[in-house]
Amino acid sequence: MAIPFADRLNNVETSAIRELFKLLGKPGIISFAGGFPDSAMFDVDGIREASNAALAQDPGAALQYGATEGFNPLREQLAHFMAQKGAQGVAPEQLIVTTGSQQALDLLGKTLIGPGDKVIVEGPTFLATIQCFRLYGADLVSAPIDDQGVQVDRLEALIAQHKPKFVYLIPTFGNPSGGLLSLERRKRVLELAVQYNTIIVEDDPYGDLYFGEAPPPSLLALTPLVPGSRELLVHCGSLSKVLSPGLRVGWMIGAAELLAKATMCKQFSDAHTSTFAQATAAEYLQAGRMPATLEHVRAVYARRAQTMGDALRRELGDAVRFVQPQGGLFVWARLTGEGGKVADGSVYAQRAIEQGVAFVPGAPFFCANPDPATFRLSFATAPEDRILEGVARLAKAL
Amino acid sequence: MAIPFADRLNNVETSAIRELFKLLGKPGIISFAGGFPDSAMFDVDGIREASNAALAQDPGAALQYGATEGFNPLREQLAHFMAQKGAQGVAPEQLIVTTGSQQALDLLGKTLIGPGDKVIVEGPTFLATIQCFRLYGADLVSAPIDDQGVQVDRLEALIAQHKPKFVYLIPTFGNPSGGLLSLERRKRVLELAVQYNTIIVEDDPYGDLYFGEAPPPSLLALTPLVPGSRELLVHCGSLSKVLSPGLRVGWMIGAAELLAKATMCKQFSDAHTSTFAQATAAEYLQAGRMPATLEHVRAVYARRAQTMGDALRRELGDAVRFVQPQGGLFVWARLTGEGGKVADGSVYAQRAIEQGVAFVPGAPFFCANPDPATFRLSFATAPEDRILEGVARLAKAL
Repeated sequence: MAIPFADRLNNVETSAIRELFKLLGKPGIISFAGGFPDSAMFDVDGIREASNAALAQDPGAALQYGATEGFNPLREQLAHFMAQKGAQGVAPEQLIVTTGSQQALDLLGKTLIGPGDKVIVEGPTFLATIQCFRLYGADLVSAPIDDQGVQVDRLEALIAQHKPKFVYLIPTFGNPSGGLLSLERRKRVLELAVQYNTIIVEDDPYGDLYFGEAPPPSLLALTPLVPGSRELLVHCGSLSKVLSPGLRVGWMIGAAELLAKATMCKQFSDAHTSTFAQATAAEYLQAGRMPATLEHVRAVYARRAQTMGDALRRELGDAVRFVQPQGGLFVWARLTGEGGKVADGSVYAQRAIEQGVAFVPGAPFFCANPDPATFRLSFATAPEDRILEGVARLAKAL
Repeated sequence: MAIPFADRLNNVETSAIRELFKLLGKPGIISFAGGFPDSAMFDVDGIREASNAALAQDPGAALQYGATEGFNPLREQLAHFMAQKGAQGVAPEQLIVTTGSQQALDLLGKTLIGPGDKVIVEGPTFLATIQCFRLYGADLVSAPIDDQGVQVDRLEALIAQHKPKFVYLIPTFGNPSGGLLSLERRKRVLELAVQYNTIIVEDDPYGDLYFGEAPPPSLLALTPLVPGSRELLVHCGSLSKVLSPGLRVGWMIGAAELLAKATMCKQFSDAHTSTFAQATAAEYLQAGRMPATLEHVRAVYARRAQTMGDALRRELGDAVRFVQPQGGLFVWARLTGEGGKVADGSVYAQRAIEQGVAFVPGAPFFCANPDPATFRLSFATAPEDRILEGVARLAKAL
């Protein structure tokens, strides 16, 4: 029989993603393609101790159904974690736990997006955001970025023109751009929220992964500077990039009415996030291990980012342009085509695979007007000697 | 500001649920209201050993991102588990892991249901199914049940009339009915699937919780008897009622094309189910602990069901009618109103709360034509002395 699928599936094109994953199959390949942290850096002992503590302390709670909003001890720990990161005054009940921050995106889609609704995202932005919102029928609008993050003048014009359901931004070390929205622009974004009465979603899975000085405060942390902006800001956080993606623990902070509807939607999406994982995360945070874990992860990624950046400049020279990342997992680069070198990211990705190194071309990260010269490299999962070898292969593929 | 919520939220009425939960707040209350297993029966030692084994064996895999389809060692164990339950020949790749079976329902909705699509469910059926499907715009049709489960002649007429996207059934010890679809009717349901080219969803979280002899085989296990039915059957399973709801590990078996689309939807819903929970469940199943766990749980629930049934017959007499459950968690009862006793389940629930005992009235479990005389009692979480005391209070509330 032909299965009578829902029309919404027609909105999603997954072949781009499938093509990306196919690139990774070859043996001996050095991969800069992933969007994930290095497994070797997981604090396995700390997580084991935390899960055993959770089972020792209140096994019934850790293994039973839980509140859809989240496991209260975790909500308390996350509120504390947010305060340490500069977002003061987030009460535990102003935060719901999500099954990774991917679920926060899904709940925003389910709660807010109807067929044909406009949503503004950065060009480029996170692939799974594009697909997630399109499944709910979103008509996505692309706001261009530059070296300071999203271009706020262009963003304002797009908000005024499209009156979007919301604006979705990854202001700090975004995927794929690795970029950093400047402090000035952050304030301007919050002013735009108030001026146009528009919800801003700040997705912030990478903000803790800074290499030198800390980045500007999150949009959430800046809301006290712009009266009226707090109610219009949704902040999504995640333990995936700093502790473990396998726990699937994310969270969402927003206006009470929005969280109430998102909680109702979550009730019918997965009832609640694994209490076992939540109780483990709560014990981990409570044990005070996170600062040392973050310090370790930052130091390792900083070295890898520096190694990759130096090698790219040395080996690829004028053939590529990129901003040296100050945090996160990614180098976002652009082929210049100078000297007759390859100028298309997809062509380059194919040639790189032949040389034994993988990355993802940039075009699929744009919801509109793709820049075909772009590509994304992750420095997170390869040790430094492999980064050097991989960049040498990249040079050969030019 | 007024948040611009999506229209789909208008399809869902949650006050019924909220009212149910409010009933549970009073101190000293004996609750027959829950739909969950007894925390005291969780095999905490087994789960601790399993999670420690998962972290010892391959911590990178247990804590990293994983395939959206599920953690392969768990898919293998679940295929084996299904075979032990009579569903032979389910390959691991014919099964995807879901974040509880609630997510299987959500993925079915996302994949198949568009606004106005007809879906047939039992009257009564699982509350969160009704709300989940309505969020996707389903126009639900209620198929009546009797002591043998769904009435297949009525079901056939409804399929012929409504040409539904699919039919959703809980054939074995369903929530709330506790009922058991007869073997004859099971075969007939599969024949209807083929005859009307209609997808049947079998939700089976309770099938392992039988008290005497095993129930008839699942619809999935019976598909070999009805050629063509296997491709039309979707089977949803869960570890929540037999091992731990807190792990949030469910699974879905279905046609390859359907699973592929459901996997795509899951990618944008939560990326994947917690690998930490999946690896723990895989180790638990592989350790061979499940048969003893099931035997223990069945024995305890069987005693509680018998205690409750005997007490209800003794204390409430002609005022209620119910079928003594042969498995699951629930007694589904109907007030007869004989002797001028209370005849409305909602009124009875209020009067019961005043006497210090809670349960849920039956009307909200119907998507249409509610039977107001019905109510649901769970015997799962109260020890036998509390069951006796609770039923005595129920008698006072009549």
